[in-house]
Amino acid sequence: MGLPTRMLRIRKATIEDVRLLHTMILEFADFEKIRHEVTITEKLLARDGFGDSPRFHTLMAEWSNQAAGYAMYFPFYSSFFGPGLFLEDVYVFEAFRSRGVGKALMAEVASAALEAGFAIVRWEVLDWNQNAIDFYRKLGAAITDEWKPVLLEGDALKRLASARLSSATSSP
Amino acid sequence: MGLPTRMLRIRKATIEDVRLLHTMILEFADFEKIRHEVTITEKLLARDGFGDSPRFHTLMAEWSNQAAGYAMYFPFYSSFFGPGLFLEDVYVFEAFRSRGVGKALMAEVASAALEAGFAIVRWEVLDWNQNAIDFYRKLGAAITDEWKPVLLEGDALKRLASARLSSATSSP
Repeated sequence: MGLPTRMLRIRKATIEDVRLLHTMILEFADFEKIRHEVTITEKLLARDGFGDSPRFHTLMAEWSNQAAGYAMYFPFYSSFFGPGLFLEDVYVFEAFRSRGVGKALMAEVASAALEAGFAIVRWEVLDWNQNAIDFYRKLGAAITDEWKPVLLEGDALKRLASARLSSATSSP
Repeated sequence: MGLPTRMLRIRKATIEDVRLLHTMILEFADFEKIRHEVTITEKLLARDGFGDSPRFHTLMAEWSNQAAGYAMYFPFYSSFFGPGLFLEDVYVFEAFRSRGVGKALMAEVASAALEAGFAIVRWEVLDWNQNAIDFYRKLGAAITDEWKPVLLEGDALKRLASARLSSATSSP
């Protein structure tokens, strides 16, 4: 399909990649202008991504054996449509852009979804990132305007949890 | 905390609840005006939610032993902030609204998140659902305008998967 496969390689990350992955995530956060808020650590990434039941999967893109980008994803569940993969991050270092690295990472995630029998891959895009929006539209993705992400954390999360009925039971 | 706990009860759904859950999901899809697109079946819900390693968790709200609403959630992973719970659905039948049912369901999910050591609960809201937006704001949730959900499915997903590098490996 025309990509220079001898130069570009996609591989699964291992626990040996945790330091590199952390660096890549911080650079991605820089790009998204929220690095000052990031709390993730190498320790958390190692615990959550590379143990017996990993909470996420990571792909590394290498260009002539140099780290060029990464993708991170995990399963999600749509009550309306069933299981799918949530592409949390896909990021390509600036020096390696416009060489098909991002598309190769996303193709790998799409392929993993189909192999698992899932019919959907979803992710999110920043509304100011027109390059990304154009790229995703070209892939045939639907960008939905009417859904807004909502986040609850910190004291507000604790306050809500304290309103739990005493008789209730739950599991994470 | 003032809720009438004798009348309102939150419990974990079991496989016996699959038919009821499917009905509730369809009613929720009606409310969200996308029932015509819904493909989920009782069989999929049973397989994915109530087996050995469930892909989602479901809570049922009962008011004086009548089904009043439900919540469905699963773990997600933020590369910037670590693990959290994704609240896929929270829905209360019209006849049971304004009685604290939705808040009790969400409090249970918040509590499950904290018990698991997670610091975030996230979900999505439709931009025309002002009642929900007001309710979530009152809880202290942040509604983000700059992130747009993106979905890839069907032929477009298959087309992307076919662009996979032949040397790549992946897992769902």
